[in-house]
Amino acid sequence: MSGRAAIKGVGTSHFARQPDVAGVRLGWQAAAEALADAAVAPDAIEAVFAGTVFGEPGVVTRTLQHLGIVGVPVLTFENACASGTTAFHEAWVSVTSGRYENVLAFGIETMTAHFSGPITPLASDPEGAQGLAMPCLYGMAANRYLHCLGVTPQQMAQVAVKNRRHALANPRAQRAARHTVAEVLASRMIADPLTLLQCCDISDAAAAAVLGPAEGRVGEVAVRAGALASGKHWDHRSELAWGWQLVADVGRTALEAAGVGVADIDVFEVHDAFTIGEIITTEALGMCDLGGGGGLVESGHTSQGGAQPVNPSGGLLARGHPLGATGLGQIAEIAWQLRGRAGGRQVHGARLGLVETMGGGTSGIDGNACVVIVLEATG
Amino acid sequence: MSGRAAIKGVGTSHFARQPDVAGVRLGWQAAAEALADAAVAPDAIEAVFAGTVFGEPGVVTRTLQHLGIVGVPVLTFENACASGTTAFHEAWVSVTSGRYENVLAFGIETMTAHFSGPITPLASDPEGAQGLAMPCLYGMAANRYLHCLGVTPQQMAQVAVKNRRHALANPRAQRAARHTVAEVLASRMIADPLTLLQCCDISDAAAAAVLGPAEGRVGEVAVRAGALASGKHWDHRSELAWGWQLVADVGRTALEAAGVGVADIDVFEVHDAFTIGEIITTEALGMCDLGGGGGLVESGHTSQGGAQPVNPSGGLLARGHPLGATGLGQIAEIAWQLRGRAGGRQVHGARLGLVETMGGGTSGIDGNACVVIVLEATG
Repeated sequence: MSGRAAIKGVGTSHFARQPDVAGVRLGWQAAAEALADAAVAPDAIEAVFAGTVFGEPGVVTRTLQHLGIVGVPVLTFENACASGTTAFHEAWVSVTSGRYENVLAFGIETMTAHFSGPITPLASDPEGAQGLAMPCLYGMAANRYLHCLGVTPQQMAQVAVKNRRHALANPRAQRAARHTVAEVLASRMIADPLTLLQCCDISDAAAAAVLGPAEGRVGEVAVRAGALASGKHWDHRSELAWGWQLVADVGRTALEAAGVGVADIDVFEVHDAFTIGEIITTEALGMCDLGGGGGLVESGHTSQGGAQPVNPSGGLLARGHPLGATGLGQIAEIAWQLRGRAGGRQVHGARLGLVETMGGGTSGIDGNACVVIVLEATG
Repeated sequence: MSGRAAIKGVGTSHFARQPDVAGVRLGWQAAAEALADAAVAPDAIEAVFAGTVFGEPGVVTRTLQHLGIVGVPVLTFENACASGTTAFHEAWVSVTSGRYENVLAFGIETMTAHFSGPITPLASDPEGAQGLAMPCLYGMAANRYLHCLGVTPQQMAQVAVKNRRHALANPRAQRAARHTVAEVLASRMIADPLTLLQCCDISDAAAAAVLGPAEGRVGEVAVRAGALASGKHWDHRSELAWGWQLVADVGRTALEAAGVGVADIDVFEVHDAFTIGEIITTEALGMCDLGGGGGLVESGHTSQGGAQPVNPSGGLLARGHPLGATGLGQIAEIAWQLRGRAGGRQVHGARLGLVETMGGGTSGIDGNACVVIVLEATG
């Protein structure tokens, strides 16, 4: 490591069901905003780190061509739901290692024109053969929590109520709403016990960040640490739900590298593709004990105005979950928060923020990927 | 850069039309062979760098799960036809920079169960709207060569004759054959002037390499240099065909970094998805002047037994072109050549080898990606 890296600027498109808008246009909006925010010219970008899951080959270079970023290494990552955060992580490593100075991290996904139902594994995969679409995998984790760990359906629903309410202050969110717990629980059943309003939407969006060497200027957001790993073998007889241990391992690695404890973090963006996901994540990050994630959200601790707001943007549940764009959407939100530029959803006095993204789908391992990034305000 | 990296072992599956074989099985064959060849245990692998274009999300982690490689960073790249070579390049950088010691580079693609015709861009893309499937893009380049640069149809066909003949000595190649120039030219027209036998096959395969710090042991293959870039804006009025300048730029960068000239290279594996591709590439790498690529193949210079054999494996034309696996298939071939283990296709006395892969599809830029790697025998 030859130096510290900082976020110089961020940008996103709207997160929305916008099947008629070309991916290239969404990508352009996000990257152009990030470059302008960073005051970095396109021809100063030395390399691009992009994330997409279902993006057609060429969508990234085509977007860059329209931005005037050509002739440089373009590294596009697929890492399930963590693709965008993986791209950010690798961009960060490339700066801290001295490989590049100015780089663009970028995530893009257009889903609504291609998918109508949940993302379903191939029938030739073990999960596909068992009908284990993603809502089912999380549904099983949710049942484990209901039956073995004392979390209540109402607490689970509180995650959806909180995050959709948070999104009311986010003009780029897809599914802001003022719901009651009863409404969440009464919505259509998707994968028992997860109802429709406990599941994120598919989405079309792009998000981006410009990184470079930390200079300590006001407006920069320092990348204090990051960690990335795939899961170890997972046995369903474990007392820990799928993904718990992976988030715990990667979270601990990142926090230790940052030299801070989870109690020091002022604001979080974490992977709430389903309500149970946020409960698992807050526990695994150490914000409470195993089984305490339900009480944590119920207490208001993780709400806007609480001690440690989680998903002030609305999270995946309310901002929407365009897979490859999600991680950089989380990064952009925390960057805005740490610069005091989050408008009506500002977490006052936020100095340290944490992004966590989980990528999954392979049931025999504890998640395909988890990435945790710790960010810090400058100046 | 904290040190030099070497290839410790390589492996591949068969390259074939094998739609009934799961990608995970092909991946397992390649990676297990590479690990055994390197005498590196799966749990010594610290990170995985994988390439695939159309691989379903999860295919890489699922393969690794079966190998016992879990809990480590898994970085999966999409970079068009250069996806596998991109993964290798990034694995190499991760070792030279001291980020990791033992890493696995890995490429996988299963195509024949999903595609029946050529790979065609989306109708919403400019190329798709114009019907510019890959054979058409290369067909236009071929016509430029026929009409403006004096290359003859017979010389173009010679590339297919040579590479399919080379593959007769490669038991893992998909389309080895002893053809005449007349047969190649008489085969069905695909994209004027490119006939069927001048086009590579889609394929199902995987390939892998284990890298680590160079120790100078016999059997290692040192990575002398590598370079990676995307293309700059391309204007069809240029005197240089699509991709020429990108290959020239990346090739020059890699050769200069290696401290050798192209005349020093003993054996090449280059991107001959279509016959004209090899002609463009040999020119752009500096083996001959612009327009001289036809005469070069006709002279026998690039044939097995010639001064500088190109594509002794059969190349993409005869080994087959499973997109994400291609680059690591090229790497494996050069590694076998430099270790004197290429059997009936051994280029005698080969000490320096070069791999070049071109990834394209976006017509407004001079290629989505090009990667060039220079490898050297040890001991």
